[in-house]
Amino acid sequence: MYGVILAGGSGTRFWPLSRKKIPKQFLKLFNERTLLEDTIQRLTPLIPGERIIIVTTAEYREKVKEIVKDVPEENIIIEPAGRNTAPAIALAAFRLKDKKDEVMGVFPSDHLILDESKFRKVLNVASDLAKSSGCLITLGMKPDRPETGYGYIELGKFFDKRRDINIFQVRRFVEKPDLRRAKLFLRRGNFMWNSGMFVWRIDVFLEELRKHLPDIYSGIQRGVRFNKNGVFEIDSKVYQSLSGISVDYGIMEKSDRTLVIPADIGWSDLGSWSTLAGVLKQDENGNVVVADGIYMQGVKNSLFYAKDKFIAGIGIEDLVVVSSGNAILICKKSNSQEVRNVVEFLSRENKEDLL
Amino acid sequence: MYGVILAGGSGTRFWPLSRKKIPKQFLKLFNERTLLEDTIQRLTPLIPGERIIIVTTAEYREKVKEIVKDVPEENIIIEPAGRNTAPAIALAAFRLKDKKDEVMGVFPSDHLILDESKFRKVLNVASDLAKSSGCLITLGMKPDRPETGYGYIELGKFFDKRRDINIFQVRRFVEKPDLRRAKLFLRRGNFMWNSGMFVWRIDVFLEELRKHLPDIYSGIQRGVRFNKNGVFEIDSKVYQSLSGISVDYGIMEKSDRTLVIPADIGWSDLGSWSTLAGVLKQDENGNVVVADGIYMQGVKNSLFYAKDKFIAGIGIEDLVVVSSGNAILICKKSNSQEVRNVVEFLSRENKEDLL
Repeated sequence: MYGVILAGGSGTRFWPLSRKKIPKQFLKLFNERTLLEDTIQRLTPLIPGERIIIVTTAEYREKVKEIVKDVPEENIIIEPAGRNTAPAIALAAFRLKDKKDEVMGVFPSDHLILDESKFRKVLNVASDLAKSSGCLITLGMKPDRPETGYGYIELGKFFDKRRDINIFQVRRFVEKPDLRRAKLFLRRGNFMWNSGMFVWRIDVFLEELRKHLPDIYSGIQRGVRFNKNGVFEIDSKVYQSLSGISVDYGIMEKSDRTLVIPADIGWSDLGSWSTLAGVLKQDENGNVVVADGIYMQGVKNSLFYAKDKFIAGIGIEDLVVVSSGNAILICKKSNSQEVRNVVEFLSRENKEDLL
Repeated sequence: MYGVILAGGSGTRFWPLSRKKIPKQFLKLFNERTLLEDTIQRLTPLIPGERIIIVTTAEYREKVKEIVKDVPEENIIIEPAGRNTAPAIALAAFRLKDKKDEVMGVFPSDHLILDESKFRKVLNVASDLAKSSGCLITLGMKPDRPETGYGYIELGKFFDKRRDINIFQVRRFVEKPDLRRAKLFLRRGNFMWNSGMFVWRIDVFLEELRKHLPDIYSGIQRGVRFNKNGVFEIDSKVYQSLSGISVDYGIMEKSDRTLVIPADIGWSDLGSWSTLAGVLKQDENGNVVVADGIYMQGVKNSLFYAKDKFIAGIGIEDLVVVSSGNAILICKKSNSQEVRNVVEFLSRENKEDLL
């Protein structure tokens, strides 16, 4: 099995901790390792480093090289520009084209998985399944709350059971729902979160890519080469001309050979500060503190994230407080999706030192 | 007229901006001048620098010398220890003892007065009145809200009117009331806030001191001297042995020769972050921002004080947010008196770098 890690994202929802130069995959949210390192370490018991491909942008090349020790440098593919997941995954698939019917898994670089051994068990099953069935497999996450920030997958017919793990056909993909529908999905029980993790045979994916996204297929086929140093690269103009489309929308929703494996592995996409607060250890008042010291009086259900500061909180609740470098965020927890508005504001105002 | 400025306080309610080494009188809350400098500049049109005495502690001596240009160094009196206002004022009175029937005014060093010309007009009247009446004069501030953080003075009989300014006898001093009584006082209209500003003849004050606080009088009389460099000083052991008592409680409440001048001069004792928020310029949503930049979305009635930071606030109200050096305070506005609890906590824990 090969692993493809998508590490080109430039997420903004962890501002002011995440910045242009340090997007989420390079943050050390839980320990002394970045999320990208965690992603790799989670895979290496199953997929050795030389079989892991990292797709990122030129901007983050040095950063990736610096922190990633287990993956050979020639396995880092540079996207000349951000073009969403379909072109990024396609790049990796072309890099592995001669592996034909071998299996590749696709993994975001900035998610959390608490139950790693379960994750690897699911991955093993998915790998065998991809090999034998010739299908595109999605890992679906069992929802535990009516989350409106994720896409959902409705389970279709039961397909198979392997090593205690059920496999289903995909009835349909559903874009981020409103709260009413999210509650309905949770109640119904046959809707899974779309985690953005996929497993498939390299040749099958390339067939489906050619079928559903022919322009991307032919563009990349035309544009890629191994340069004189043996480094796999894509022509910059060609890549920039591709349409930016997600693999979910561009392929998964359209393909008729998809399967989904519902998995309960303690997954989180860490999509916002409040999501992070939900997975970090809370005290008896529901507070999460990552700081150089804390005084709290009448503080409830709040997140304080300020590694180098002492924080005093008095009489507050449901807040996210983050201090990093030259900026401080104070945000109602339920508004934490709106942190991206701050980043948009700063971009409009050209505040480079804050981005 | 002489001016005595009390600059030995070590207030804690502006933490984390105020610290042990930088108490409130040394903060630049409104402009590029410290509150102590503002206090002096407010007086100098009436009282030249060589007639101003500053009482402070050894800890702040250098700081005072550094920032105070208009007042000669020999006019700085060092308290060997903090012993509240009665001993501090008594020290200054003994320093001026040979001026006999000249008048001295006593002024805290860390208050705000918006209407300075009115203040000086009142002071002129108070000075003449002190000279002619031989009374202890308090400047009483007309309340505009049911403040529970101040002491009050109930007006007695009308005494005189000079230059459009009414003068009353003092019926009684009232310690900080609860909200119900504060509302009553505000409604009644004959209760003034006790501002801690006093005007009296030096000889009269010394008489009253001897009468009501004989131990302090005789202790200081025994302990003071001009040393061989001509510097006025008090024996450290003697001063430390004095009881720490306020001039309000020790003399004003007991004396039968007190008068009060109600004054409406835009005074604030700047007793807490929320008091400060009340006197700084608010935007249309009631927010006050002192920061290196701000993004606000759904923010109401809040104070942000972080001179060197960009602040983003989303969906919050009635908050005080202060960042200074290695610490951040996030406090419900109505809890801002409790900031001293943080300082007490830090003292107990010996967190010297945060005090």
